[in-house]
Amino acid sequence: MQKEPIRSELLFFSQSSSGGGSGLQVHVVRLHPGQELLGSLQAFVEEKRLRAPFIITCVGSITKATLRMANATATCTNEVIHLSGRHEIVSLVGTLNPDAHLHVSLSDSEGRTVGGHVLGDMEVFTTAEVVVGEAVDLQFTREMDLNTGFPELVVQPRSQTEK
Amino acid sequence: MQKEPIRSELLFFSQSSSGGGSGLQVHVVRLHPGQELLGSLQAFVEEKRLRAPFIITCVGSITKATLRMANATATCTNEVIHLSGRHEIVSLVGTLNPDAHLHVSLSDSEGRTVGGHVLGDMEVFTTAEVVVGEAVDLQFTREMDLNTGFPELVVQPRSQTEK
Amino acid sequence: MQKEPIRSELLFFSQSSSGGGSGLQVHVVRLHPGQELLGSLQAFVEEKRLRAPFIITCVGSITKATLRMANATATCTNEVIHLSGRHEIVSLVGTLNPDAHLHVSLSDSEGRTVGGHVLGDMEVFTTAEVVVGEAVDLQFTREMDLNTGFPELVVQPRSQTEK
Repeated sequence: MQKEPIRSELLFFSQSSSGGGSGLQVHVVRLHPGQELLGSLQAFVEEKRLRAPFIITCVGSITKATLRMANATATCTNEVIHLSGRHEIVSLVGTLNPDAHLHVSLSDSEGRTVGGHVLGDMEVFTTAEVVVGEAVDLQFTREMDLNTGFPELVVQPRSQTEK
Repeated sequence: MQKEPIRSELLFFSQSSSGGGSGLQVHVVRLHPGQELLGSLQAFVEEKRLRAPFIITCVGSITKATLRMANATATCTNEVIHLSGRHEIVSLVGTLNPDAHLHVSLSDSEGRTVGGHVLGDMEVFTTAEVVVGEAVDLQFTREMDLNTGFPELVVQPRSQTEK
Repeated sequence: MQKEPIRSELLFFSQSSSGGGSGLQVHVVRLHPGQELLGSLQAFVEEKRLRAPFIITCVGSITKATLRMANATATCTNEVIHLSGRHEIVSLVGTLNPDAHLHVSLSDSEGRTVGGHVLGDMEVFTTAEVVVGEAVDLQFTREMDLNTGFPELVVQPRSQTEK
């Protein structure tokens, strides 16, 4: 991939054009044993009609997970591992709308950590406490980026009539 | 553990019944060399009388830590490691009230990471900068969950008179 | 380093003296292939004139990074590694003003994670979605701490006239 020059006028074009920041609301959920983390969060976002949601923090444990590794690309997505066994969620980061883009790191019975892109199949072991933020003045969408081959995040101000 | 069917009416019963989100306030503290991270955060929450507090971000370094590993359960909690030596805090996640539920990942002198559930004994090496969020419309409590054997997070709306 | 006794009256002297928390605004940016993460965030903070900014979440991937390891001190800062190859950002934590203090953990093509203090040279591979929080009632500065040898975070209330 060719490195592009960084031009300041391009740098933040996806930021809200208002220049100011957005207000924030938070939602807190606890997931229960057997629930699937990714699907549950997506269902939550849909139920609450969140339009610019992201993970603030998540603490919990899971019994399995399917993760995509760093080497995967849009055309070579088979770098996937299926974890099984109890793991602690030691980080969960990312945005949740309209497609979730989450990365996680998980620690095992000896404290070793493994990380990657969340594809799903993350079954909760004991609990998952999740704080979701919603930028109430912004709207997340995704548009195909020909440079990456993935639908990438676009951040726009929420119009007054939509709030 | 038997997998329960996910029923949408059950899925988010611990969420604030208001349906909407909560407002947020943030507190920022810097801890100093020799201070213990977990106890200091618990003391901070008590001093400020925070009722729905959680970690937003934490950057810093520690000289030791006691962590519980993923394999531990309510009846077999002896899967514990005592780390010593300088480590960077590369993630800290979780909620802080009424009992702290924190997971951490720490990196050592070669960048290797170790993660788990924070039991304490996390002595600050140079600094710990911590941003704590407080959901001002919510109240965190914990109730024993017979499915897990642990007191698990319950999220409730804060009554108007209590605000 | 000598361990200091923890005195409660000292514990949180760097906290806003108002006792209450601060309001929060959020800014969301997507960085593009080839952009450098640390410098881009510093430019963003400067452009938006943020005075108490910190990372809320970051998801993305990078092709290289320069990290300082946990063993480094103010007088022995040469514990540095230069990573190359595609890595997922699985955590990014820290504060952004007036000097960025960021720690990261990165996962490689096999899910192995490496972590440390961000020195720079973090070139975005496909994307980096970053949510930055700004504590609108606080002001971050840094002052040399003789105990650590580093300029450490000082948190102060923002004066009314400055808001």
